[in-house]
Amino acid sequence: MANDWATFGADLHLELRGTGLRTGLMDALREAVRSGRLEAGVRLPSSRSLAADLGVARNTVADAYAELVAEGWLTARQGSGTRVAQRAVPRRTGGTAGAAGAAGTRPPVTARRDTARPTYDLKPGVPDLASFPRAEWLKASRRALTAAPHEAFGYGDPRGRIELRTVLAEYLARARGVHARPERIVICSGFVHGLMLMGQVLRARRVREVAVESYGLDAHWDLLTRAGLRLPALPYDELGTRTEELTAMKGVGAALMTAAHQFPLGGALHPDRRVAAIDWARASGGLILEDDYDGEFRYDRQPVGALQGLDPERVVYMGTSSKSLAPGLRLAWMVLPDGLVDEVVAAKGRVDWVSSSLEQLTFAEFLASGAYDRHVRAMRLRYRRRRDALVAAVAAHSPETRVSGIAAGLHAVLELPPGLEPAVLRSAAWQGLALLGLNRFRHPDVPTTQDGLVVGYATPSDSGWAGALAALCRVLP
Amino acid sequence: MANDWATFGADLHLELRGTGLRTGLMDALREAVRSGRLEAGVRLPSSRSLAADLGVARNTVADAYAELVAEGWLTARQGSGTRVAQRAVPRRTGGTAGAAGAAGTRPPVTARRDTARPTYDLKPGVPDLASFPRAEWLKASRRALTAAPHEAFGYGDPRGRIELRTVLAEYLARARGVHARPERIVICSGFVHGLMLMGQVLRARRVREVAVESYGLDAHWDLLTRAGLRLPALPYDELGTRTEELTAMKGVGAALMTAAHQFPLGGALHPDRRVAAIDWARASGGLILEDDYDGEFRYDRQPVGALQGLDPERVVYMGTSSKSLAPGLRLAWMVLPDGLVDEVVAAKGRVDWVSSSLEQLTFAEFLASGAYDRHVRAMRLRYRRRRDALVAAVAAHSPETRVSGIAAGLHAVLELPPGLEPAVLRSAAWQGLALLGLNRFRHPDVPTTQDGLVVGYATPSDSGWAGALAALCRVLP
Repeated sequence: MANDWATFGADLHLELRGTGLRTGLMDALREAVRSGRLEAGVRLPSSRSLAADLGVARNTVADAYAELVAEGWLTARQGSGTRVAQRAVPRRTGGTAGAAGAAGTRPPVTARRDTARPTYDLKPGVPDLASFPRAEWLKASRRALTAAPHEAFGYGDPRGRIELRTVLAEYLARARGVHARPERIVICSGFVHGLMLMGQVLRARRVREVAVESYGLDAHWDLLTRAGLRLPALPYDELGTRTEELTAMKGVGAALMTAAHQFPLGGALHPDRRVAAIDWARASGGLILEDDYDGEFRYDRQPVGALQGLDPERVVYMGTSSKSLAPGLRLAWMVLPDGLVDEVVAAKGRVDWVSSSLEQLTFAEFLASGAYDRHVRAMRLRYRRRRDALVAAVAAHSPETRVSGIAAGLHAVLELPPGLEPAVLRSAAWQGLALLGLNRFRHPDVPTTQDGLVVGYATPSDSGWAGALAALCRVLP
Repeated sequence: MANDWATFGADLHLELRGTGLRTGLMDALREAVRSGRLEAGVRLPSSRSLAADLGVARNTVADAYAELVAEGWLTARQGSGTRVAQRAVPRRTGGTAGAAGAAGTRPPVTARRDTARPTYDLKPGVPDLASFPRAEWLKASRRALTAAPHEAFGYGDPRGRIELRTVLAEYLARARGVHARPERIVICSGFVHGLMLMGQVLRARRVREVAVESYGLDAHWDLLTRAGLRLPALPYDELGTRTEELTAMKGVGAALMTAAHQFPLGGALHPDRRVAAIDWARASGGLILEDDYDGEFRYDRQPVGALQGLDPERVVYMGTSSKSLAPGLRLAWMVLPDGLVDEVVAAKGRVDWVSSSLEQLTFAEFLASGAYDRHVRAMRLRYRRRRDALVAAVAAHSPETRVSGIAAGLHAVLELPPGLEPAVLRSAAWQGLALLGLNRFRHPDVPTTQDGLVVGYATPSDSGWAGALAALCRVLP
C-alpha cells in the first residue's frame, strides 16, 4: 500500500538517524510526498498517534506538520485534520540521476518564508531586534579591528579569544556573581553549541542520565537525547523545581537548570532548593548545568546571583548574548569547573573551528567600553514597561487570566482555565498572531496538563508592540 | 603495575571515545601523569608502537608527544626517547572533591604558548595574517551594519544569509567556474565544519567508505573516521590521483579530492583523471567532495575551473575564506547538489546555530564591492614573488633539492633524498624554524615513504620572510 502508515513509520525511523528529529521528520514527509507514496489529499495521522508510533515528542510532530503547512506541502483545516496539499503533487523532472530528481518541487525560499510569517509575533525567545545598538557595535568593531594583533586573524585558541574571556570574567563576577577566571571560560556559538559540547563530555564520562525540569525546550531535550542521554524530569511546586528529589534519582550524573528564571514557568528557584541542588552535586559528584539565558533582566529587584557562585567546581555556568543583545551574533560562553576545561576543549576541537575572532574581539571591546551595560540597562527599562503594559492589559481585558512568574526576562506566563489553551491558540492563529501554549513545553513524563500561554513580549518592535498586545487581548477569555 | 602499558592503552581507548584523537590522547597522558600512574622519568613507548597499540595514526601520537613536550609534561632528547618530565610530578591540591583535584599542575596558558612558539614559521596552512585588509573589512562592516534588516539580528536560515549566498553564487561562477545558485549554497564555519556535516549526511545515507588521496591532512581523516567512515586511499602517479581506480573500489560512496591543487603534493589533477572521477560518480551514484582550499591562487596561468562545473549534481564543492583572507573569520561555503541541500540543513540544525549573521553580511559587502577580488589579486602577486624567491634560493643553496608541484597556492614541496627528512626536521627544530615533513601527510595505507618538506611560504609577514627563507636554506642538504 502506498499509504501504509506502519511501513511509512518504519522508514521514518531509519531516515531520522543522525539528524535533527524535527527536520529529519520533515525531510521524510517531503520525500514521501515527492515520491508519491503519500498522495495529494491523503489525511495524515494525528500528531499524537504519529509521535507515539515514532517514539518522539508530540511537539516534534506537531511542529513538523506546522512547518510543512507553511511551506505548502500539507494543509490543515479545522475538523478535517492534516492532509497532503493538492499542489504538492510531485512534478518529476526527468534526466538527472539519483538524489537530484526530486528538486523541481521545492517552493522558492522567499515564498516559503512569506507564507509562514504572521502579522504579530509574541512567541518567546527573541529580543527586540530593532533595538540592536548598531552604532555602538560598529564603534567596538572599529576599535577591535585596529587593536587586534595579526595572530588574531589566524586559527585560534579553542577556548576563544583571551581578550574576550578576560573581560567576560570581570563582567560575570560583577553582574551575575559568577566565580570566573579567564582560563575557565570557553566561548561557544550559542547555548545550543555549549549544550552539545556538554552532551559529548558527559557521555565520555559515562553519564547516562541528565535530570531536566518539568517544563523546558524540546530542542534542548532532543539534543541531549541524540547524544545518548536519558532525561528524567524533576517535579516542581510553588518553590520551583524540587531539587531535593535529585538524591533519590540514582542514575543521574547532571541536572540542567534555569535557576534564576525558570523557562518557561517564570519562577526563581527558592534558596533552599538552590542549596539542595548544590548539596546533591557535592555528595554525588554530579554537575549542574546552569542555563542563565536572561539573568540580566530582573525588574523588581537586583538579579539573584548565579547558582555557580555557590560552588564553581560543581556548576557549569552557561550564558549567552542571544537574549541580552542578539541571537544573530552567535556568541555565548561557558564557565567551567577547572577539571572540565580540557574535556570541553577536546570536544570542541584542537583550534576554534567555530567562532569568528573578530566578532569575539568586537564583543570584548563592547563589554570593556561599558556599551553592553548601557544596552542592558536600556533594554531592562523597555522590557519592564512592556511587561507592566501586558499585566495591566490582561487585568483590564481578562480579569480571570493570571500572569504568573517573577517580574523578569523577556516572557510571561498567562494561566488559562483548564481546557482553554487549544481554542485560544486557534483563535490567535486565525488573527495572524504567533503565540505558543504552555503545554508544548511540558516534559513527556509530567502527567498533568496545565493550560496557559507563554508570551514573549520582547520580540515586537516598539511600533508593533501596541498592535500585538491588542491582538493578544482579543484572544484571551 | 603503575606503568603497565597494556592497561594504560586500554584506558586510553575508552577515554578517546567521542573526542578528538590527538587531544583525547593528550588528555589521557596528562591525566596519567597527574594521577601518578606515569611517574617522572618514565620512558614512554615510541610513537610508532603506541600508535599501533591504540589503532591510531602515528602522527597523532607524535603530535601529542610534541605538544606535551612543549607544554612541559614530557621531555624528548636524542637517543633517550620521550620521558615524563621531572617537574610534571603531580602536586595534589587537597580538599575539593572530584574532577577538580588535579587542577594545580596545569602550567599557565601564556607560558605554555611562549615555550612552543618558534622564531620562524614555514608550516603550511595559514596565509599572511599581517596583510589582512583591515580598513576595507571595516568599511564593509559599516555598510553591512547600516543596511541589515532587523531580522538579520535574529535566529537565521540554516543555509546562511541569503545576501551572502547570492553574491557568492555570482563570484564562484565567475572565479571558479562553479555552477552555483544561492539556494544550493550552505554557509559553514570552515572546511572542517562542512566536512563534519558531510560525514553525518553520508552516514545517514548508509555510506561506509570514503576514498581519500594518498597524501592529505590527518585532521580531516580523523574527523571522517570518528563519523564512522572507513577511508581507503586512492593511489597516485605523475598525473595525480588515479581516479580510474574508484570503479574497482566497490564499497566507496564518496571521494574527497583536492583537484585544483593536491594537498600537500601540489599537482593539479590531469583532465583525464577529472573525467574519470565524474564518470565514476555518475555510474555509481557516488559523490565527490571537492576541497577547493586555495583555488584562487595560481601563478602561471588562469586557475583551472572547479571539478564541480563538470557535474553539479555529483560534486559537493567546498570553498573557504581561510586561505584567501583569514582563518579567524570562520567563513566557508558548500555548493550542493539539489537533492542534498535538505540533508545538509538537517545535519546543521533547524536554524543557523553557528555563523554570525553580521560577519556573513560583512563578507557579502566585501565581495560585492570588489574588495575581495582586489585582495586576492594583491595576495596572488605577493605569494607568487615569495614562491619565486623560494625556488631561486633553493636552486642556489641546495641544487640537488627539487621544488615540485604547480606554481600555485600557499605552499611548495621540496623533495629530499631518501632518508634525509628526519635529520632536516631536527636541524630546523634546533634553529627555531617550524617546518613539516612530507611523510606526516602520508595515508597509513601508502607503503612507500617519500622524503620531503611541505613549505608554507605565505605565513611569515613581509618583514619575517627573508629570515625564514635564510633559515630554511641553512637546513637544506
